[in-house]
Amino acid sequence: MPALRPATRADLPAVLALLSDEERVVDPASVVVTAAYEDAFASIDEDPRNEVLVLEDPEADAPGPVVGCLQVTYIPGLGKGGVERALVEAVRVRADRRGSGLGRLLMELAVARARARGCALVQLTSDKRRTEAHRFYASLGFARSHDGFKLAL
Amino acid sequence: MPALRPATRADLPAVLALLSDEERVVDPASVVVTAAYEDAFASIDEDPRNEVLVLEDPEADAPGPVVGCLQVTYIPGLGKGGVERALVEAVRVRADRRGSGLGRLLMELAVARARARGCALVQLTSDKRRTEAHRFYASLGFARSHDGFKLAL
Repeated sequence: MPALRPATRADLPAVLALLSDEERVVDPASVVVTAAYEDAFASIDEDPRNEVLVLEDPEADAPGPVVGCLQVTYIPGLGKGGVERALVEAVRVRADRRGSGLGRLLMELAVARARARGCALVQLTSDKRRTEAHRFYASLGFARSHDGFKLAL
Repeated sequence: MPALRPATRADLPAVLALLSDEERVVDPASVVVTAAYEDAFASIDEDPRNEVLVLEDPEADAPGPVVGCLQVTYIPGLGKGGVERALVEAVRVRADRRGSGLGRLLMELAVARARARGCALVQLTSDKRRTEAHRFYASLGFARSHDGFKLAL
């Protein structure tokens, strides 16, 4: 059974490796975990409405290495009786394992987790240039209904 | 000086009126504040990374009635040394006061508040059909760089 679970401090090098992995695999052992990253992880870990989730390799003997991750923020709202929405960010699959269905598994498990929590909606944004990602999210049932705006401060 | 401030429980009828105000003004006195809304507001109010902000009428003698509101979620991340991003949702200006610059004031004050908190980014999504809103956000300096995806659960 593939495991999507909240990251622990011990997963931090693997998560940072995935976040810096653009085209090729970054070895978690090569990642320098600075105090700033420690603090950032602690902030997320202590917040009941934020979590970094990691996917262990479903093909490995348990516990497998981390091959995917994402961050979810559960947002309380005033609409619909105060139900939460889940915002997904920083979706990553290890470079050497892309195109193998792991991204789909990662997202499906995250959506199931949000549903089990009672969320009414899962939302995310994707860079307009990433048309392959857009087809991927559409295939998962997401509607590309909004434009996403960003203002750097 | 126009005041953008966190909503208190006493503002809840005015905020709910704004959220249900599509084409015409809803009288806050006509709003039924259910226990579900009370609970939802308390959830937001108790969360240090969520706030409903209200704009008091800058033309009224202080304290003026609430003429605008929005919700902000401050999202901690692992990137950039753990800096937060501000997600803005549920932006509303009272129906009879639209087109008067209040929306701009509301957003500018919210952006200034996020900057003062140390956020690296302000982000939001807007329905693709709302082209006037898109021009408005672009005029505030926001880049329409992403597509927004939603999956109802």
